[in-house]
Amino acid sequence: MSELKNDLLLKALRGEAVKRPPVWMMRQAGRYLPEYMQLRAKYDFFTRVETPELACEITLQPIDIVGSDAAIIFSDILVIPQALGVEVLMEEGKGPLLPKTIQTQEHIDNLKTEGAAERLDYVSKAIALTKRELNGRVPLIGFAGAPFTILCYMVEGKGSKTFDKAKQFCFTQPHLAHQLLQKITDATIDYLKAQVAAGADCVQVFDSWSGMLSPVDFNVFALPYLKQISDALAPLCPVILFPKGSWYALANISNTAASAVGIDWTVTPEFARAQTKNNITIQGNFDPIKLLLPIPEIKKLVKEMIDAFGAQRYIVNLGHGILPHIPVDHAKAFIDAVKEYHNE
Amino acid sequence: MSELKNDLLLKALRGEAVKRPPVWMMRQAGRYLPEYMQLRAKYDFFTRVETPELACEITLQPIDIVGSDAAIIFSDILVIPQALGVEVLMEEGKGPLLPKTIQTQEHIDNLKTEGAAERLDYVSKAIALTKRELNGRVPLIGFAGAPFTILCYMVEGKGSKTFDKAKQFCFTQPHLAHQLLQKITDATIDYLKAQVAAGADCVQVFDSWSGMLSPVDFNVFALPYLKQISDALAPLCPVILFPKGSWYALANISNTAASAVGIDWTVTPEFARAQTKNNITIQGNFDPIKLLLPIPEIKKLVKEMIDAFGAQRYIVNLGHGILPHIPVDHAKAFIDAVKEYHNE
Repeated sequence: MSELKNDLLLKALRGEAVKRPPVWMMRQAGRYLPEYMQLRAKYDFFTRVETPELACEITLQPIDIVGSDAAIIFSDILVIPQALGVEVLMEEGKGPLLPKTIQTQEHIDNLKTEGAAERLDYVSKAIALTKRELNGRVPLIGFAGAPFTILCYMVEGKGSKTFDKAKQFCFTQPHLAHQLLQKITDATIDYLKAQVAAGADCVQVFDSWSGMLSPVDFNVFALPYLKQISDALAPLCPVILFPKGSWYALANISNTAASAVGIDWTVTPEFARAQTKNNITIQGNFDPIKLLLPIPEIKKLVKEMIDAFGAQRYIVNLGHGILPHIPVDHAKAFIDAVKEYHNE
Repeated sequence: MSELKNDLLLKALRGEAVKRPPVWMMRQAGRYLPEYMQLRAKYDFFTRVETPELACEITLQPIDIVGSDAAIIFSDILVIPQALGVEVLMEEGKGPLLPKTIQTQEHIDNLKTEGAAERLDYVSKAIALTKRELNGRVPLIGFAGAPFTILCYMVEGKGSKTFDKAKQFCFTQPHLAHQLLQKITDATIDYLKAQVAAGADCVQVFDSWSGMLSPVDFNVFALPYLKQISDALAPLCPVILFPKGSWYALANISNTAASAVGIDWTVTPEFARAQTKNNITIQGNFDPIKLLLPIPEIKKLVKEMIDAFGAQRYIVNLGHGILPHIPVDHAKAFIDAVKEYHNE
């Protein structure tokens, strides 16, 4: 492996001094890029995910085109249910569908836990290939869905505004929910370890639906599993947790083994810093819709955001994935604004 | 008008001492009630809303069946776009559709602001009839959607997880957004005043989508209009604001003329009380999914919730509308638990 030429992300994660914060964007390898759309027109979703050469090519696109300070491997959080033997259908532009949802003890017993991470070997191959192609330009982020969010899809069977069925399952059958969460957690830890072994420099865990939980329920159904993952991975590489919508959990998250926490735009820099007491690096939180503003306004807002968070222990990012209709030059302006940042 | 036999809600709103807090449920006149489903099978949505006798009958159902301490007039927040001349289609179980969305200055200029509130005269009639039928048993709550939330539907044209188009409209064309928000606000104030004149004892303003905004944007696109409504209505009756998901706005909301603020279950009692400094009554925040728990557990959780919020300056409610698949006896247990509350 070649040494990293740009290690801003890792420095920020380790709490080391940086001359400016690093920047990347959630879903930066995505539909706003014409180059991605060309591959999307030719190969279906899981072909793109499961073919290391395609996943690598897609992962590199934003590094070449908009110049992010980190790459994140192109994949999907629902590969874990697949690895556990659950069918996942992905209709382009429609979101996922899991025809056979998890409802009973038998369903949980029948999950194929043995060798689950090994069945995701194509992700390790994609990571190894991407590391080679990156040739040390920027770090590579591995990722997985958080156990509660994966449970949401496995029980609900599809996306939802409120994941009522998944929450009903947790609240009315907590014994089953914890069994399922533990199986997901075990597979996820193995899977993330394999990503690190293949070359991932750090990992992010996406708890996209934890914000549907009350603080009490977050501490029961989300936090313990995020902790297990952080404890298992932190000795190997920095861990970023992104419990979207769980603003109330920042203090607890800052006391895990994770190196950083992602926040959305409802959280002010002041609140985030006060809750986390500089125990942890903060990542976020530009509202992706604001990338539709004129470029000078984007640049002004980014500068103000960095001033407010402070340039240290901070990773510039969006508060949610970039949207398909963002012009590429606006995305690039977001990145450029960070690279031009200096605070005198 | 007969005097109120149960004025717990109004006392809690005025900050007066109560022996126990009042309780009602958002969407308490709704699909979990078989009696409602019978009317739903016979009359389409807007027939139910626009026929005072039907709206009255539906409004009274939860008072008779589960015994809430307040009635809330059966209607819909999207009557305001209708009154402004915008077509609203409501396909049963599918959510609203506004085929002609607001996008341009011309669209805003063409809104039928003149006489908008008068076109909602059927709501006043329903309120007057319901007050008569209630005969002082419990107070009657009037309501409207908050301007930002109404803008969301008028610009987006339908429900959405993120209301990207509506936010894009606000951020990229703020001048148009403020014109639209002001027209909605003016109509809403007239409409709520008419509800009070017809007999509503207090009003609630639902900002169902304000939580999509950052604190800065909330202060630009939501709060000023909530303030205008509170200022206009507070001299006439207590106002409850429910900016769903805007946990960060509690301190600002507590400094408006409103008497109460609704919160969802992500907000702890401690956080809500600390932010609002007892300036305002708190309403909420039981997770509706938890009404699927066994009845003894529901009762235990309700008792704990009241203990945590405190019985004074508190209105027991859900953190969001009751769900269609909640058993009626579970909803009733929620209400009963409050009535049985005593804290020694």
